[in-house]
Amino acid sequence: MTDKSNKLKARLPRGLVDRAPAEIASTRAMLEKIRAVYELYGFEPVETPAIEYTDALGKFLPDQDRPNEGVFSFQDDDEQWLSLRYDLTAPLARYVAENFDALPKPYRSYREGWVFRNEKPGPGRYRQFMQFDADTVGSASMAADAEICMMAADTMEALGLRGQYVVKVNNRKVLDGVMEAIGLSGDENAARRLTVLRALDKYDRLGEAGVAALLGPGRKDDSGDFTKGADLEKQQIEYLVKFISIASTINSSIREEEATLTERSGRSSKIGEQNFYESNRALLTVLPQQVPLVETGYDGLEELMQLCVLCDAASYSPIQIRFDPSVVRGLEYYTGPVYEVELLLETKDEKGRPVRFGSVGGGGRYDGLVSRFRGEPVPATGFSIGVSRLAAALALVNKRDAQQSFGPVVVTVFDQDRIADYQRMVAELRAANIRAEMYLGSGKFNPQMKYADKRNAPCVVIQGSDEKNDAAGEQVIVKDLVLGAELSKLEKGRDEYLQKQAEAQRKVPRDQLVKTVQEILARHGVKTRVA
Amino acid sequence: MTDKSNKLKARLPRGLVDRAPAEIASTRAMLEKIRAVYELYGFEPVETPAIEYTDALGKFLPDQDRPNEGVFSFQDDDEQWLSLRYDLTAPLARYVAENFDALPKPYRSYREGWVFRNEKPGPGRYRQFMQFDADTVGSASMAADAEICMMAADTMEALGLRGQYVVKVNNRKVLDGVMEAIGLSGDENAARRLTVLRALDKYDRLGEAGVAALLGPGRKDDSGDFTKGADLEKQQIEYLVKFISIASTINSSIREEEATLTERSGRSSKIGEQNFYESNRALLTVLPQQVPLVETGYDGLEELMQLCVLCDAASYSPIQIRFDPSVVRGLEYYTGPVYEVELLLETKDEKGRPVRFGSVGGGGRYDGLVSRFRGEPVPATGFSIGVSRLAAALALVNKRDAQQSFGPVVVTVFDQDRIADYQRMVAELRAANIRAEMYLGSGKFNPQMKYADKRNAPCVVIQGSDEKNDAAGEQVIVKDLVLGAELSKLEKGRDEYLQKQAEAQRKVPRDQLVKTVQEILARHGVKTRVA
Repeated sequence: MTDKSNKLKARLPRGLVDRAPAEIASTRAMLEKIRAVYELYGFEPVETPAIEYTDALGKFLPDQDRPNEGVFSFQDDDEQWLSLRYDLTAPLARYVAENFDALPKPYRSYREGWVFRNEKPGPGRYRQFMQFDADTVGSASMAADAEICMMAADTMEALGLRGQYVVKVNNRKVLDGVMEAIGLSGDENAARRLTVLRALDKYDRLGEAGVAALLGPGRKDDSGDFTKGADLEKQQIEYLVKFISIASTINSSIREEEATLTERSGRSSKIGEQNFYESNRALLTVLPQQVPLVETGYDGLEELMQLCVLCDAASYSPIQIRFDPSVVRGLEYYTGPVYEVELLLETKDEKGRPVRFGSVGGGGRYDGLVSRFRGEPVPATGFSIGVSRLAAALALVNKRDAQQSFGPVVVTVFDQDRIADYQRMVAELRAANIRAEMYLGSGKFNPQMKYADKRNAPCVVIQGSDEKNDAAGEQVIVKDLVLGAELSKLEKGRDEYLQKQAEAQRKVPRDQLVKTVQEILARHGVKTRVA
Repeated sequence: MTDKSNKLKARLPRGLVDRAPAEIASTRAMLEKIRAVYELYGFEPVETPAIEYTDALGKFLPDQDRPNEGVFSFQDDDEQWLSLRYDLTAPLARYVAENFDALPKPYRSYREGWVFRNEKPGPGRYRQFMQFDADTVGSASMAADAEICMMAADTMEALGLRGQYVVKVNNRKVLDGVMEAIGLSGDENAARRLTVLRALDKYDRLGEAGVAALLGPGRKDDSGDFTKGADLEKQQIEYLVKFISIASTINSSIREEEATLTERSGRSSKIGEQNFYESNRALLTVLPQQVPLVETGYDGLEELMQLCVLCDAASYSPIQIRFDPSVVRGLEYYTGPVYEVELLLETKDEKGRPVRFGSVGGGGRYDGLVSRFRGEPVPATGFSIGVSRLAAALALVNKRDAQQSFGPVVVTVFDQDRIADYQRMVAELRAANIRAEMYLGSGKFNPQMKYADKRNAPCVVIQGSDEKNDAAGEQVIVKDLVLGAELSKLEKGRDEYLQKQAEAQRKVPRDQLVKTVQEILARHGVKTRVA
C-alpha cells in the first residue's frame, strides 16, 4: 500500500470541484435568505433524488435507443436506463405527476440541489452545480408568473442587491409570433427554431453582426471554433435582426432618457423612477408598431401586459421587473412568459475587459412538462437560481464586508504523558461554548505554534511542568496570537510594546483558564457560539 | 403530447425516494445541531463532488477491468471509469491527498452529503441516502479517536437523546489478535477474515447458533435465502463463539449489577453510575484473562485503555462511551479503534416484536486510506452518521413534541377581473412578514376554501363586490379557519357558539387587513417570520 511507485493519483475528473469552508459558509447563509423569501410566499420544500429514469427526464433518444450524451447515464440491473438529473424541473414534473391527487392545486414548491451535465467544462462551467428552484404547478394564470417575478426580485433585495439587479421578462409567444411571421412554424422547423432562439439569445454578447452570422451559414469565434448557423434566407435574417435590435434600441433610449432626467434632477431616483415607471407599457405598445407580428405574438404581448399590471399593483417598478424582448432562454420547453435575473454589477471577462455580471437565474412557463405524464394539460411556471454564480456575485459585492473569522482556540501539548490534562482543558472550554481543540499531532512546540497560526487561532493555551508545579499553585499560559502579531510590528522596548507584551502572554491560575480565554476572545470581537 | 395512450409513466427507480416538507424541515434542524457541535470541536466544513474516478474510490476491480457492481459507474469521454461516491470517507482521502501541503495537519473536517449504493434496496435501505461525517487526518494519537467518541456523545446529547444512546468502542487489533490466534492472519486469509467479521457483527441479532452457522458452512434465513459461511473448522468456531459470547456475558452481568444497584438505591443513576464508572477498565482487564490473545490483541487493548483514560479525564461516563468487544463494523479498511453509536430506544421489527433502534452511526481509524495516494503513512480516524436513520429515531422521540404547523394565509379570488386588488393584499401581508399567497387556480369559491383547508391555512381573506363597495367604505372579510373548525363541533345557537361565530368571521375596513390577520395568527400562536 505504501509503495511509492504504485501509488494512486489523487485527482478529480474535469469539470468537478471541491468546496472550501468560506464558500460553504457563504453559500449556506445565502440559501437561508432565499429560503426565507420563498417560505414567505407560501412555497413549501420538496426534494427528489439525484437519479431518475432517463425517459422521465425526457433525455432518452428513442430513434437511437440510448440516452442523450449530455446526461450521465447508466443501466440498472433490469437493463433500464437511469440518468443523473440535469436540472430540477424535469424531476419536479415527474414528482407532481406521480403525486397529483394528493397535492394541493395550484401547487407551490421550492427545492435546492445538485444537478449534473455531461458537457464540456469551461471557466465557470462545471459538470456538477447547484440550483435553487421554485415552481407553481396547476395555474394558467399570469398571476402565477407575476408572483415568480416578484419573488425573484424580493430574493435579490433580501440578498442586499437593491439597484444592482433587474428581472427581465419576455414571452415565448412573442418570439413564436416573430418566427411564424417569417415562415418558421410547424413541427418540421422545430430544430431550426431552436437554433434561431439560441442565436437571438447571444445578441447582448455578439451584437448584430454576430447574430446575423448565426442566423445565416454560421460563425467562427475568436478561438477559431465554428458554430453552424440556422441557414436562413437574407430576408428572414433582416426581419429578425430588426426585431432584436429595435427592442434593444427602445430599451437604450428609455435608459438614456432616465439617465438624463436623473442627472438633471440632481437626485439618483425619484424623477427618473416616475418616468421610468411607464417604460414597460411603452415598450409593449411600441414594439408591434415597429415589427409586424402574427396573432400568437399579440397573445404574448397581451399576457405580458397582464403581468405588468399585477407587478404595478404590488408596487414593483420597472427598475426591478422589466419587459425585455431580447430575453430568449434557450430551453425548448418554455411555452409562455420567460424570465431572467440579470446582475448589473461590473466584473471582468476572460480578457480583463469590464462586463456586466449577467444572468444568475431564469425560468418561465412550461405548460407541457407535466402533461407528458398526465395525458391532460397541466400548466406550470417556475424559476431557477444558479447558486454558484449568485454566490460568486455576492462574494464580489460583499468583499468589503468580509470580516476576519477566527479558528478555534488551540490547547498545545507540552508533555505527551499529560494529554489527559490538556483534554480536560479543551472539554472545559467547549463546555463554555468556546470553539476549541487540543493539538493532536506529534510535533514539538514550534510546529504546534505554526499549526495554531495556520488554523487562525485567536489564542493558544500552554502548560509546561513549570506552570503545572508553580509554587503559587497550578498555572496556565494563555497567549493572544492577534496581539502577538501586532507586537511583531512595533519597535521593541517602547511603552506600547511593553504593555502589549504583557497583555499578549498571560500566566493565570488554572481555574481562570476559561475566564481568561473569554476575555481575549471578547477583546477581538470573537463571538462564542450559542448552542 | 397529451395523447393518453402514449403517455410516460411517472415513477422512480426502486430504492429511491422523494422527501416531503416535514422530513426536510426536521432533517434540516437536526443537521444544524450536529454542525454546531462539530464546529465547537474546531472541525471545519469541506465538500467534495458526488462523482469521482472509480479507482480513487477503491472500487475498480483490476482483475476484471471494471468497477465493482455495488457502485453506480459510467465511462467518461476518455473511456475512464467514473462512479458515484458510496460513502464520504474515500472522497475525503482523495481530497486530503490532493491538497496535502496546503492543509493544516492534523486536519479536522466535517461534511454532509448524499451517497449512492447500487445494492438491493429493502425496508429502510435506499440506493441514495445522506451521511454526515467528521474526520481527523494526520494524527496517530488515541486522543483523536477519543475526541471523535466524545463528539459523537455530545451530538446525541445536543439532539436531546441523553440516556437513550451509547457510543460503543472496540479495536480492530483486538479482533485481528483473535483471528491471528486461530491461524487466520496473512493476505491469503483476507477475504475469509472479512466473512468472519461480518458474521461476528450479527451476534446481537442472530445469537450464538446463527453466528456459528455463518462461521461454518453457512446459514439459511427465515425467508429461505442461504448465506455462504466462512467454512472454518470446529475448533476455530468454538474459540470465536467463546470470545464473542464472553464479551457479551461480561457486558450483561455489569448491566445487571448496575440495574440492581440502581433499583436498590431507589434513584435512577448516581450509585449505578459510580459503580458502572469502572466497567470499561474491568472489561479491558477481564477479557484477556478469559480468551488468550496474541500480541496484536494486547496492543489493541492498550489503545482502548488510553482512550478510556482520556474520556474519563473529560468526564464522560461509560453510560455514554463504553468498550464493547462485540462491535465489529464490517468495513475492510479499519485499522484501530472502531466506534458505533447505538440508540437504546425501543421500536418494532418487521414482525412487530420490540427491538432496540440500534446503530445510527459509526466509524473508526483507517490509517491506510490516504496513504494509498501518498506513498507514506497518513493516520486518520473518522465517524459517520446515517442521517435518515437518526432522523427517523428523532421522529420517534419527538412525536409528543410535534406541534401543529400552519400553512400560509390564503387570499381568495372572488372576482377574476380584480386579481390586481387581491395581489396588492398579498403583497401587504408579505411585507408585514406574514406567510401569504393568493389563490392561483381557476376554481370558484368552494374549491378555494377546500384548497385553503388542504394548505392548512390559519385564515382566509375574502372580498366580494359587496365588501368592495360597502357604504361604510371598502371592507374585507377575514375568516379564522381554526375557530371555524372548532365551531363545527359545537351545538348551534349556544352562547359559546354565537360568540365564536362572531370571532370566526370578521368584516373589517380594508386598511385593517394586516392588523386583523396578525390578531388571528397571534390567537393561534403562529409566529410571523422574521427576515
